[in-house]
Amino acid sequence: MAQARHDANAQTALDMQRARETSKLDVEAIQVFLAGRGRKRWEHGKKLQDILSREPLFSKRGREFLTRKERYIHGTRIMKRAYELQEEHGWSPAVMVDVFQKLYDPLPINLHYVAFEPVFMSQGSEELLKRYGTLVATRGIIGCYLQTELGHGTNVASLETTATFLPDTDEFEIHSPSITSTKWWIGALGKTATHGVVQAKLILPGGRDMGPHLFFVQLRSLDDHRLLPGIDVGDIGPKALGGNQANDNGYARFSRVRIPRFHMLSKFAQVTREGEYVKPPHAKLSYGGMLTIRANMVTGAGWTIARGITIALRYTTVRRQGELDESGLERQVLKYPSTYYRLIPILARSYVFIALGRRVLQAFQEMSAQLASGNTTLLPEMHAITCGLKVLVTTAGINDLETARRSMGGHGYSAFAGVGQIYADYLPAATYEGDNFVLDGQVVRAALKSHKSATATSQGSTERPPSSAYLRLLHPSASKGAQSRFTFDRQTCSSPSQLALLLEWRAAKMVAELASTVSSAEGPDASASQRVSRAVTEAFVARQVETMLGDLRVLPGGQAEAVRRLYILYLLTTVESALADLLSFDLVAFDSPSSDPARGLRLAIKSTCAAVLPDAIALTDAFGFSDWDLDSALGVHDGWVYEALLERVRQEPMNAEEVTPGYEESIKAMLEKGQRLAETRAKL
Amino acid sequence: MAQARHDANAQTALDMQRARETSKLDVEAIQVFLAGRGRKRWEHGKKLQDILSREPLFSKRGREFLTRKERYIHGTRIMKRAYELQEEHGWSPAVMVDVFQKLYDPLPINLHYVAFEPVFMSQGSEELLKRYGTLVATRGIIGCYLQTELGHGTNVASLETTATFLPDTDEFEIHSPSITSTKWWIGALGKTATHGVVQAKLILPGGRDMGPHLFFVQLRSLDDHRLLPGIDVGDIGPKALGGNQANDNGYARFSRVRIPRFHMLSKFAQVTREGEYVKPPHAKLSYGGMLTIRANMVTGAGWTIARGITIALRYTTVRRQGELDESGLERQVLKYPSTYYRLIPILARSYVFIALGRRVLQAFQEMSAQLASGNTTLLPEMHAITCGLKVLVTTAGINDLETARRSMGGHGYSAFAGVGQIYADYLPAATYEGDNFVLDGQVVRAALKSHKSATATSQGSTERPPSSAYLRLLHPSASKGAQSRFTFDRQTCSSPSQLALLLEWRAAKMVAELASTVSSAEGPDASASQRVSRAVTEAFVARQVETMLGDLRVLPGGQAEAVRRLYILYLLTTVESALADLLSFDLVAFDSPSSDPARGLRLAIKSTCAAVLPDAIALTDAFGFSDWDLDSALGVHDGWVYEALLERVRQEPMNAEEVTPGYEESIKAMLEKGQRLAETRAKL
Repeated sequence: MAQARHDANAQTALDMQRARETSKLDVEAIQVFLAGRGRKRWEHGKKLQDILSREPLFSKRGREFLTRKERYIHGTRIMKRAYELQEEHGWSPAVMVDVFQKLYDPLPINLHYVAFEPVFMSQGSEELLKRYGTLVATRGIIGCYLQTELGHGTNVASLETTATFLPDTDEFEIHSPSITSTKWWIGALGKTATHGVVQAKLILPGGRDMGPHLFFVQLRSLDDHRLLPGIDVGDIGPKALGGNQANDNGYARFSRVRIPRFHMLSKFAQVTREGEYVKPPHAKLSYGGMLTIRANMVTGAGWTIARGITIALRYTTVRRQGELDESGLERQVLKYPSTYYRLIPILARSYVFIALGRRVLQAFQEMSAQLASGNTTLLPEMHAITCGLKVLVTTAGINDLETARRSMGGHGYSAFAGVGQIYADYLPAATYEGDNFVLDGQVVRAALKSHKSATATSQGSTERPPSSAYLRLLHPSASKGAQSRFTFDRQTCSSPSQLALLLEWRAAKMVAELASTVSSAEGPDASASQRVSRAVTEAFVARQVETMLGDLRVLPGGQAEAVRRLYILYLLTTVESALADLLSFDLVAFDSPSSDPARGLRLAIKSTCAAVLPDAIALTDAFGFSDWDLDSALGVHDGWVYEALLERVRQEPMNAEEVTPGYEESIKAMLEKGQRLAETRAKL
Repeated sequence: MAQARHDANAQTALDMQRARETSKLDVEAIQVFLAGRGRKRWEHGKKLQDILSREPLFSKRGREFLTRKERYIHGTRIMKRAYELQEEHGWSPAVMVDVFQKLYDPLPINLHYVAFEPVFMSQGSEELLKRYGTLVATRGIIGCYLQTELGHGTNVASLETTATFLPDTDEFEIHSPSITSTKWWIGALGKTATHGVVQAKLILPGGRDMGPHLFFVQLRSLDDHRLLPGIDVGDIGPKALGGNQANDNGYARFSRVRIPRFHMLSKFAQVTREGEYVKPPHAKLSYGGMLTIRANMVTGAGWTIARGITIALRYTTVRRQGELDESGLERQVLKYPSTYYRLIPILARSYVFIALGRRVLQAFQEMSAQLASGNTTLLPEMHAITCGLKVLVTTAGINDLETARRSMGGHGYSAFAGVGQIYADYLPAATYEGDNFVLDGQVVRAALKSHKSATATSQGSTERPPSSAYLRLLHPSASKGAQSRFTFDRQTCSSPSQLALLLEWRAAKMVAELASTVSSAEGPDASASQRVSRAVTEAFVARQVETMLGDLRVLPGGQAEAVRRLYILYLLTTVESALADLLSFDLVAFDSPSSDPARGLRLAIKSTCAAVLPDAIALTDAFGFSDWDLDSALGVHDGWVYEALLERVRQEPMNAEEVTPGYEESIKAMLEKGQRLAETRAKL
């Protein structure tokens, strides 16, 4: 009477196959769109992925079994091999940036590319560039960027390291005057870098403190990699949650280390032979680089979320659990509303951030050109936008990765699921390039400034720069009857401009309230900064999304519609997360006192998610990740998740021997002690 | 002109000292209160902590540098040593539970105590207990509990492993019929356990499937620890984020393994010699144990959060950054509203959960006594409450640990900060003992059932059990004019009963709406289950907190007031997180359409947090953690955080040699390649 059993293992592959057959989307077209650099470069990218994934040293397998020191040394091998491949294939420096990005491992060399080289090249004097520029470009020297100290991170003005000008020898003396001045967290410093750019307070003759400036310092000998005299450098130890293991974040202490005067990065500010200070044309001229880094973080967040959500959507598509569906099998986990409500909006965010980042970066490159020519008027605008976006995308990214991981239930807690590592590596993004809570303050400061100028002038203030466009709503001429309450009916919920307008109203109301409370006796409440920063940035992004919908013209019909649906879902869920604000500021209409005005919104989210479901796998395939990229047993392309888990478990070193060495050493004695005790008791 | 520098390093200890001097609280009195078992047992606990922390093998230093296999083997040494100490000191089994708790390392033996032993003892037949009971109690055998399979976790009814009764030999045959039936995630199984209790479908002669039952199976030989014939067992590999490293979560496959009939755990259901099934008196009689585990998780969450928040509050007390305060030094990070608004409510939650868990557990022990005597009427009530609480406290605990970690800025991402490891180890609590999203569904089901019965009967329904007491508000006799809108004035914000009433109204309204939408054409929205579960549980907890305020009588005056403030803060922040619901259901009064009705609430939160600040360090000292307990460089008792970080860094193995082995192997060649390239370019 034993019935023919259903094979849940084989079913996984069937489910994945069916999920791909269900969608009519042209996956390749969306892949090209997301890659964003035209079909030709997309094809190059595919080829590159292919070469890298065939390289034995680049296999990610087994890394989880190494100690951190082994991971670091393995990382140096990877770097070396990458440059050998560059030589073999004749790759340009731009391709190498792609290469290291595609390796998804936070390698020390990334710091050379991301932090050291741009600062050195954009702020070094002609003389310095002439002497070292080529070596930097060819990585004949490897650099790091020494800013953060043990005692100070975010507050750069309080950094303690000094660079004292010595007129007698025409040198600077770099010195760490205290324990807390020890440089700390510096990527690639611990064991790799030969040189560094050091943030230090410039001290002029007579003790005049000119505040933080940048200095180029050699750290290690190019002969034998030993530390130069007066320099104490080491690794700061493992990071939390096993993140960034291959990176040698380091510390450095300088004991009166001398460097020639031209080692000061003096494209903008300078010190003359006589020890006179020459001011930069604009105090913040050197900020351009950081703005670009932050703008890049938007697209970066999109791609990071994309990896996590691809894994989660694939696994929840093939995992069946609980009640039976129409086919008589247990239901696919993704088909439960409580699952897709969590996951599909994450998919939407990854699409939005990828396109948004590109949009913002493009605008910034234009602004950077102006900046280079000395025009700094747009700087505050760029600053406010990048701060807000950085907070928004990193906060969302971290949350989304953990939501994706948790949606996979028990197996999501296996290292082999892969999402944990992405999370651990991404987590510091909330802190680096400006702690999110500090940046919130900067966004709010800019918003209050804009509000002041918008309300001070009675004319012309309806025309605002993008970062504070929402303030036009507060202008007397604009608000005439314009603020009605919004109802979450079908029309509102499918209108990007209505949803964006609602978010703009929220920003306007909240900034206005904050402006009035900062001067009140009780002041603003304690979370005002966080909430207002979020409201302001979400209003900006919502307007951008509206414009981005226009950019979808490049996609053929069905594809554009699928992406459009994700963009609208992004707006809907943003509005949902803003409900407490929207209701507090009376922006939502009640049909009747007893009806829940948010129900229409939530049903729209549910039906939009449900409409995405048949394309969910296709939309993740459109990210173009290979199994090598994802390195996840639960996110395998073919759906055979259980086989993949079993294969990974076979590699676990603890399974190499049937009886653990811990038995002879410890367990045996424990058991024997217990058995003797039991015998004694039996005799009593 | 060089000015006398302020020593930020030495300042840390001064700040910590001052923080202790500022508070007038009797820390010891609160310690005894939190420990909750009277002064005598508190003193014993202190002594135990002392003995354990002096044991060299129990030092936590250097663990972060081991591979996972080494961590496991180290864990077996710790277990062995713990039992040696038991012998030396004559500790009772109850003390040993404390011992393993205080080691804060998820060791395999914990599974013996938490899962295997209780199930075995409470559900084994007399014969089984007679044969193995003493060995289990003395750990002459080490057990594990094999429930979850590769293909099924939460849905126990679909487990595939079979236990077929063979009348000829009076045995059961345990068998894994498929890949997905492989037992998976089983703690202590991989390398440690000698025996296990296996969940398997009981198959009677003729193929009758009686669903999941429990069977006692020997896995490894007691002679040499080798696996018994027909049994394939191994470790399932590393966990995400470096969590639970010392635990050998394992897999098992059974190939027609035979066990005697009395190895079925048959205190309730039985199979006779003839193969007849004898039903248990109540289908859910075996649930008592799981309820106790979940109830224990409430206090457990409180203590876990306590560790994280102690570290964060200590560090943010001594860390100074940013603007200058009245003393002319940079402000202590904790003194920023955006910091204390995040941290003080976490402190409040740990206090609430510790006391709440004890309260619930006490109630349950009474119920368990009834259960043991066959009275199962209270079971649904216990079930609904424990499900809801488990979701509430684990969700909060995970969030709070990450918030605490992130509040520490860059240094919070160091493994030496310690919070990351607590987080990684605690993370699976969202999934084990019932996936939180599945449990939400059970809470909601119970709530809908209560709602149905409450609205069906027009009489008597004002008297409800605690889990659904809020439903009294829907009773016609109760709601007469009772639902007014709440205003967040000083009176409401300082009244536990008003705040609890508000949360009860929210629960009542949301359950009523859900009841009406489940039968509507569009159905409930996709997040309804999560939101309603939360509302129902928070209403229950709020009423409990009101009662817990009465329990504070045992504390002398000032101490009771300090804890009372934390309890009220808990209620205030719970209400704040419920704002979107409260506003949607029109429970909050607007003074005027343009004023923000939530402002009063948020200002109350701010001022309550600010009132806690002078006692923040004393209230964390009251948890009684030693530096050995916390193992955190940033949470050191004396405040010397930078010295502690430096000391830890000295132990980093990568710092043992000045030049990394990666240099000769890889870095050197990279640099030389770059230098050659630079030379070539220079010649061009």
